[in-house]
Amino acid sequence: MKNGLGELALIERIRAGSTATEREGDSSIGHVGHSRARSLALGIGDDCAILRPPSGHEILVTTDFTLEGRHFRRDWHPPESVGHRTLARGLSDLAAMGARPQAAFLSLALPGDMLATRAGRTWVERFFTGLRALADRHGVPLAGGDTAESPCGLVLADIVLIGSAPSGRALRRSGGRPGDALYVTGALGGAASELAALQRSAAKPNSKPPRMPAPNRNASHPQTLPQPRIAVGRSLLRRRLANAAIDLSDGLSSDLAHLCRESGVGAEVFSAALPIHPLASQTSADRALHLALHGGEDYELLFSAPAALRVPRSMASVPITRIGRLVVGSSISLLDPAGRSTPLHPGGWEHFAKKQ
Amino acid sequence: MKNGLGELALIERIRAGSTATEREGDSSIGHVGHSRARSLALGIGDDCAILRPPSGHEILVTTDFTLEGRHFRRDWHPPESVGHRTLARGLSDLAAMGARPQAAFLSLALPGDMLATRAGRTWVERFFTGLRALADRHGVPLAGGDTAESPCGLVLADIVLIGSAPSGRALRRSGGRPGDALYVTGALGGAASELAALQRSAAKPNSKPPRMPAPNRNASHPQTLPQPRIAVGRSLLRRRLANAAIDLSDGLSSDLAHLCRESGVGAEVFSAALPIHPLASQTSADRALHLALHGGEDYELLFSAPAALRVPRSMASVPITRIGRLVVGSSISLLDPAGRSTPLHPGGWEHFAKKQ
Repeated sequence: MKNGLGELALIERIRAGSTATEREGDSSIGHVGHSRARSLALGIGDDCAILRPPSGHEILVTTDFTLEGRHFRRDWHPPESVGHRTLARGLSDLAAMGARPQAAFLSLALPGDMLATRAGRTWVERFFTGLRALADRHGVPLAGGDTAESPCGLVLADIVLIGSAPSGRALRRSGGRPGDALYVTGALGGAASELAALQRSAAKPNSKPPRMPAPNRNASHPQTLPQPRIAVGRSLLRRRLANAAIDLSDGLSSDLAHLCRESGVGAEVFSAALPIHPLASQTSADRALHLALHGGEDYELLFSAPAALRVPRSMASVPITRIGRLVVGSSISLLDPAGRSTPLHPGGWEHFAKKQ
Repeated sequence: MKNGLGELALIERIRAGSTATEREGDSSIGHVGHSRARSLALGIGDDCAILRPPSGHEILVTTDFTLEGRHFRRDWHPPESVGHRTLARGLSDLAAMGARPQAAFLSLALPGDMLATRAGRTWVERFFTGLRALADRHGVPLAGGDTAESPCGLVLADIVLIGSAPSGRALRRSGGRPGDALYVTGALGGAASELAALQRSAAKPNSKPPRMPAPNRNASHPQTLPQPRIAVGRSLLRRRLANAAIDLSDGLSSDLAHLCRESGVGAEVFSAALPIHPLASQTSADRALHLALHGGEDYELLFSAPAALRVPRSMASVPITRIGRLVVGSSISLLDPAGRSTPLHPGGWEHFAKKQ
């Protein structure tokens, strides 16, 4: 966690926006907005941040890139959305393990000319507005990170999330058993649908810069404002409902394959049971099914639970839908309403996939 | 911590090289090379890694970018050096706080064509060889991270280090008091000197690709193979010697300014006392002094201790040199042997500094 004096303005900006911290000899560092910030003993301004995890808890760590040109485009995504999505990717990994967020760390590389222009500075401010709004909603302090000048004119971010869970209780991908019922939260295919709409909008002649949707319209903007399912994950852990869990970032077909591989099982998915997002339903039925299976970036949870267990139809106001079951073996198939089975191959987001 | 199937080969490569982990239902994940890996309950292969910090300890977290074109150049630095330096940057932050390393997380974006060519794959392998060698020396498992295709043809890395220290005992930048003596470990200016040599070497006509120095020549290669002072930092903490500490990544003049700012003090540095690295001594005395003050990337420790305290001349086989003292106020000055005082302004490495 290094910074030259030239970075201080940026670090101060991050610091001023953070919900941390009880730093010794300095009472001027923003508000301790949430009781959870108590676990943060030292925030931005030293070589490391210091966390005090709750006793009897384990520490969970996840890191996720958000790279311009790979994970977002400045001409498609409003800056608040980029900040929101950067944090959401990490929070969603914590949600998948039922963890409580403790602190976030952001490494951010910005093009040198970005801080030299008003438009660039506004972009950075709006990025932090989006990131901070989501951080505040989940009570997670931005506790540090790194800054650098981007070597290639692109915005490069890497988010680190630290969470905690009672020892030995975190949900894992590997706990699925043959016979388990399979569930998903929320709806599928919406993020890919909205992305396609953003792309079409940007391609229009004289297209305007992307605008941020109103905050009360989150559910209608699964690409711009994906909602990490922290409350559902924690509830699954607390109520011991799930045998295995993963979040849907790559797409149902890919993430289900991860869960099955780690659990040593196969799976059957009932196509008619899939909760299709309204944005995806606006297209043909075939296209909607494709988006729900392979679209990716929905950041919903996929989990398995013993078939005999009563899983509520909604948790933390999020619908829960039973979409299939785990089976003996390693093959994953899609069953249509007529009972016909076709293999379900991973078709989600794959880095490097073209090259191998 | 997300990966599509196309990333699996790379993740498997990271996993095979890691010293972790006691993962359930899978005994094929490399060797648990060190007892410290016991604190890692779950490594690569789930949404998050899980750590079990020692009881009564706090968790320290630091993140550091290593970006091609900003922090290294492929035509100057051998790939093993890039891997080594990526990890060393994070370890050095832990050293500065006296922490014990627990786990490392690497986010790595590689140009798409790199995995498609033998030369590219060799570069990646040698990068991991360098990173792993340093990780093994300090018993720190590579516990996870993220991979992506670089959006701009450059290698982009972000390292996260998690460490632990007894609660309330971590060394901070803010503990310096007027009257403290100032100390540095090792020698200064070597990293900048070697960097200049690498640059000259690469500029020669028909220059060969950078070669890796022999591992037993670490001390002669402060730029290629900087040695994070983990053992010294832990000893300073254990023996309660230091009031404040920071690592020298930006350069003595910049990092001393950070320490003074956080401690609310000024400082005097005795120019004749500075331990100049032999590589820097090969130039003029003025140039050598400049490199020692402003060169940066030496990754030595700078710490303050009560003047009456007896600080050993070496710790963990690393020389310790008294170079000055902390004073009341906020000004930092350089005193020459004749007792003349000149202001010492930060002149180290500053991102964005040109633009502000």
